[in-house]
Amino acid sequence: MGNSRLSHMLIEASDIDALARGCAVLGTGGGGDVSTEALVARQAIEEHGPVRVVTLADLHDDEIVMPVGGIGAPSVSAEKIGSGDEVEFLRTIVEGVLQQRVGALMAGEIGGGNGLYPIAAAARMNLPLVDGDAIGRAFPEVHMVSMHVLGLMPEFIVVADERRNSVVIRPMNGEWGELLARAVAEVFGGSAAMADYVMPVSRARGAIIEGTVSQALRIGRSVHSVTDPVTALITAVDAVKLIEGKVADVERRTAGGFVRGSVIVEGYGPDAGRLVRVEIQNENLVVLEDGAVLASVPDLITLVDSHSADAVATEVVRYGQRVAILAFPCAPIWRSPRGIEIAGPRAFGYDFDYTPLEVSHVVRT
Amino acid sequence: MGNSRLSHMLIEASDIDALARGCAVLGTGGGGDVSTEALVARQAIEEHGPVRVVTLADLHDDEIVMPVGGIGAPSVSAEKIGSGDEVEFLRTIVEGVLQQRVGALMAGEIGGGNGLYPIAAAARMNLPLVDGDAIGRAFPEVHMVSMHVLGLMPEFIVVADERRNSVVIRPMNGEWGELLARAVAEVFGGSAAMADYVMPVSRARGAIIEGTVSQALRIGRSVHSVTDPVTALITAVDAVKLIEGKVADVERRTAGGFVRGSVIVEGYGPDAGRLVRVEIQNENLVVLEDGAVLASVPDLITLVDSHSADAVATEVVRYGQRVAILAFPCAPIWRSPRGIEIAGPRAFGYDFDYTPLEVSHVVRT
Repeated sequence: MGNSRLSHMLIEASDIDALARGCAVLGTGGGGDVSTEALVARQAIEEHGPVRVVTLADLHDDEIVMPVGGIGAPSVSAEKIGSGDEVEFLRTIVEGVLQQRVGALMAGEIGGGNGLYPIAAAARMNLPLVDGDAIGRAFPEVHMVSMHVLGLMPEFIVVADERRNSVVIRPMNGEWGELLARAVAEVFGGSAAMADYVMPVSRARGAIIEGTVSQALRIGRSVHSVTDPVTALITAVDAVKLIEGKVADVERRTAGGFVRGSVIVEGYGPDAGRLVRVEIQNENLVVLEDGAVLASVPDLITLVDSHSADAVATEVVRYGQRVAILAFPCAPIWRSPRGIEIAGPRAFGYDFDYTPLEVSHVVRT
Repeated sequence: MGNSRLSHMLIEASDIDALARGCAVLGTGGGGDVSTEALVARQAIEEHGPVRVVTLADLHDDEIVMPVGGIGAPSVSAEKIGSGDEVEFLRTIVEGVLQQRVGALMAGEIGGGNGLYPIAAAARMNLPLVDGDAIGRAFPEVHMVSMHVLGLMPEFIVVADERRNSVVIRPMNGEWGELLARAVAEVFGGSAAMADYVMPVSRARGAIIEGTVSQALRIGRSVHSVTDPVTALITAVDAVKLIEGKVADVERRTAGGFVRGSVIVEGYGPDAGRLVRVEIQNENLVVLEDGAVLASVPDLITLVDSHSADAVATEVVRYGQRVAILAFPCAPIWRSPRGIEIAGPRAFGYDFDYTPLEVSHVVRT
């Protein structure tokens, strides 16, 4: 990922647009709305200065990394805007629990608005941002993080809202953490701010997915000022184009703290006559065609606008949109047996095994 | 309440039966099943010795009082038995948050099983039990406590389960505390252990309702070995008998963390021809007859067996039971304007004002 090149990189206001595009692509339809988070991040940087991006190698073993993000259904968080200082509030709670200062912020998930989530607070509090996250994409459930794959327990999870309610959860395992954090976010109106797997740098080493902030920036920049953004994006993320076509149907509902549903894409041009279905739980989970699985979690599936290559989020995809469905490989940790158990198709209730994208698609578009 | 007389009183195994009867009467149908809690309390005292009951006057200003109880629908807690060491677990969490030792336990509510809830743990941990509680009866919602009436905030609420999951809630007010604790208890399967309004003795003075453990004991003893237990009970709690009759209908459902429903009692003997309805949310809330309110929260309404005077809980009342409906005055704090606002009829969705029992019933049975 070229971390060394990016040590002490700064995120300026002018970088936010590219970062937001990249996070949206890695969001696989979810991770929260990027446009609001981009506005908030840009404004904070303009007021307080750029954000210093660091690698774990730049930090001392005992410094505390605080991963943060929004929890809830993206359809709710897009309309329920926070107070803007939730991360500062989370920090005071975390420091109260640990009796230790937070040394750096990190995005809990790089995908979608959550990839931008820590930036405004990092600018305001003058804290560095770790070039990495805990997923390398977006996933809908709290325990679907690299640390859980490695068997690390969240010591505690903090969930807070814009009214200054807070809850500190000490779950017996990651799954209970998900159930409890989700129920609390529901009480808070469907979305909330969360700090999860707060840990010293010594524990984070090897347990997070490094380089994903710079990866998102690189993805966002790849589509800038090019004549064929979709092809440029395919090259940048090493993707397979599964189909290009028109959205023929969208079914979407918000229930139990998630957006669930499906999107039907009807091919055109070389794909005319094909009908493909994408199934959703906050994020795009699987792509099906005539009963065959074209791609599935944990690999990344992103719908992009067929002209601009802008990623289309699950909460805004609509009838008639012209899209390409891209799929690209997940971070290696998700392809471990435990990774597949936690976030493979069966973890989402599907009755089929995971097949890596490269195995099912030998010919690249 | 004669606290001075009861300073350094001991609760022996032989006292549990009377205490359980008294707690059931003060439970107004709710507060959780007394029989299971009585078994657990008796066994713990037999193994670890009697529990010392103290008044706040016996304790130092800076000693920490930990009020505990079960939260959830009584119909669930009657079947979902805990691990037995939830209070010990709550204590470790509370002491971690406060960085201070707990000095005494207290029942969060004296009514129902919750009145007996701290006894087993007090015996095992050799901690004194405060002669008092935060309600003087049972109420269904977390914020319906005397401290809330006085404007004191719960610094934090701990909710834990038998699997060793725990949640520390810091709500912005009592109502948010209720919403969050209820949602967490629901995730835990419908019932959980809770410590609420943990405070130093200095803060508890004047803010709790003292003497309610000895009051419950006194009530329980009043019906022992007498020829007419119902009349003895009426004298002991200064009650009005609203009707004596047969349960003609029971409607009951468990939803949103509560038992809700109603009980119809058809009068016999002198009450023949009368039909009275009791409405329920965990506890008995109001008694209605031909559209008139015979009694309502915050005053206490208890259905008792017409022979034994044993209180009949809302989760076990059944068709054909012969009962007397008794009503008696609540603790004075609930008759303050703020007390009525928090736990009067309108707080439970009724469109009528509270009338003190003595005003509507000038003639005692």
